[in-house]
Amino acid sequence: MKDKLWKEVSGAKDRLEGVAHVTPVFTSSSLDHIAKSCVYFKAENLQLSGSFKFRGAYNTLSALSGEERKRGVITHSSGNHGQALALAAKMLDERAFVIMPADAPAVKREAVAAYGAMVIPCAPTQSSRVGKTREMIEQTSAVFIDSHDDLKVIAGQATATVELIEESGPFDIILAPIGGGGLIAGTAIAAAHLLDGVRVIGCEPAGADDAFRSLAAGERITDFVPQTIADGLRTPLGKLNFEIMQQLVDAIILVSEEEILQAMRFVWERMKLIIEPSSAVAVAPLLTGAIGGNGERIGVIISGGNVDLDSFFSTLAKTSVSPLQS
Amino acid sequence: MKDKLWKEVSGAKDRLEGVAHVTPVFTSSSLDHIAKSCVYFKAENLQLSGSFKFRGAYNTLSALSGEERKRGVITHSSGNHGQALALAAKMLDERAFVIMPADAPAVKREAVAAYGAMVIPCAPTQSSRVGKTREMIEQTSAVFIDSHDDLKVIAGQATATVELIEESGPFDIILAPIGGGGLIAGTAIAAAHLLDGVRVIGCEPAGADDAFRSLAAGERITDFVPQTIADGLRTPLGKLNFEIMQQLVDAIILVSEEEILQAMRFVWERMKLIIEPSSAVAVAPLLTGAIGGNGERIGVIISGGNVDLDSFFSTLAKTSVSPLQS
Repeated sequence: MKDKLWKEVSGAKDRLEGVAHVTPVFTSSSLDHIAKSCVYFKAENLQLSGSFKFRGAYNTLSALSGEERKRGVITHSSGNHGQALALAAKMLDERAFVIMPADAPAVKREAVAAYGAMVIPCAPTQSSRVGKTREMIEQTSAVFIDSHDDLKVIAGQATATVELIEESGPFDIILAPIGGGGLIAGTAIAAAHLLDGVRVIGCEPAGADDAFRSLAAGERITDFVPQTIADGLRTPLGKLNFEIMQQLVDAIILVSEEEILQAMRFVWERMKLIIEPSSAVAVAPLLTGAIGGNGERIGVIISGGNVDLDSFFSTLAKTSVSPLQS
Repeated sequence: MKDKLWKEVSGAKDRLEGVAHVTPVFTSSSLDHIAKSCVYFKAENLQLSGSFKFRGAYNTLSALSGEERKRGVITHSSGNHGQALALAAKMLDERAFVIMPADAPAVKREAVAAYGAMVIPCAPTQSSRVGKTREMIEQTSAVFIDSHDDLKVIAGQATATVELIEESGPFDIILAPIGGGGLIAGTAIAAAHLLDGVRVIGCEPAGADDAFRSLAAGERITDFVPQTIADGLRTPLGKLNFEIMQQLVDAIILVSEEEILQAMRFVWERMKLIIEPSSAVAVAPLLTGAIGGNGERIGVIISGGNVDLDSFFSTLAKTSVSPLQS
């Protein structure tokens, strides 16, 4: 099975060549000092559409048949997958429909629309999203693209880890956040193929620990109410994702909401990079001491940088002018 | 005079080699689209100490005589120069004293102290800063290091532009913000030596337009009350800085507070880079249309990324957990 998975990753790498950004890898001497390790951040917050999701979306869309391309693509998303799909569809000249909950931030709806996709509002419940999507598929005959439970999507996400290993490997440990499981599954496939003895560790908010509990139980737990600021990690694990994780992921670390915020602030303040809360989940274990301490070489996938900055900038605008001398 | 200035820059380049970060250069296709130009951002927000100021401080400190080094160094600063001096002194194993206004953000005082410098509080007025500094020089016999009105400081700052030109040049236009004038003077020296026909344009808040008015009047105006969020640009122009600017700076563009905030938000949101308001001043003219429009190659010095994030993260912490499904 591992060979078949790697073949998909090779295919994704070819399709993304010259299209996706080869995002930079950052280091931080203060983080290395705290974590007593050598840490390498793969900055997918600088990827097209602001997250790694572009890789999976573009890989999937560009592998569609000519007939499928004509029908266009459809998904439901309140976040990064919607933006990624919209951009990939635009670049490939395909129609795209994105079902979005009516309470999604205006900035996200606008981003999807700005890429030329049709935004279709629905009520903010899973059943409404699924129902509305089914209805639109009947109307448009567009091809449904899942955000994570899809081998082409997983293979696309894997290419971030391939690049990280090519540029800065080898690694003793690779960390990635877990939402639906697209990123962690891809990360694990790439790491297993390219590195010997690496440990792939998924990071999850304690308030959305379905992957942790699913692996412990040996079966996928999908019925839970996520309680976390990490909006990209509230999705239940996919079926294929769970199967891959059972084979290739070594451990899962849970982090608290406070640890997520502290890690996000650390990266903003010290590394001057905007990362979203979901990304901070994979940084937090380095700051708490859960990971590191022995000079390990550690790779971290920084998944994205799409954050709603409205409140910050409206506060700044109010307090803007100050007469104080520097 | 230009040759003598360039010789200083060459010396600075040698002293900073292998010490200062060669910061990356970023581009943004959405910015290029808006500005109808090819824009290259030299990301000094990723420099040691979080701003370009490290270059000037380290260059100056490493050029001191053995006797001067023993005496240690002193400055007054509420911002980036204090942090830069403290870090440079630590790296060179020199004592450092930083006079800081008592109302400076705690995070900045802590940063200076964390680099091992002695922080000496003073009242938040220019006269108190100068008085306290004089008093401490008498007590300690430390060498005073000006934040901008110093040829070694200016030569250090110039090295950012040298690197930008080496990596991404040539340019039709180079933009940099103006505070005390250390960065713009260094930028202009480097550009004049390395490029033909380049225009060096300084960017200033309309609420702290002393450089604009000084160049128009042909004499340095230092008595004004700055009204701007760009805390790094509230300093009056230095004497040497003004002389260099009169010879080598082609124009000055003024931007409003609203334009500063919009530019800062653009870079945070689209480029995922934390830049401080002072840096946004040199980005704003590209968004307003004051600069660009004809496919010009434009270099921009992003001066720093030291921003007080307290309010943002305390708001986030309060609203952190949300039960919404992604």
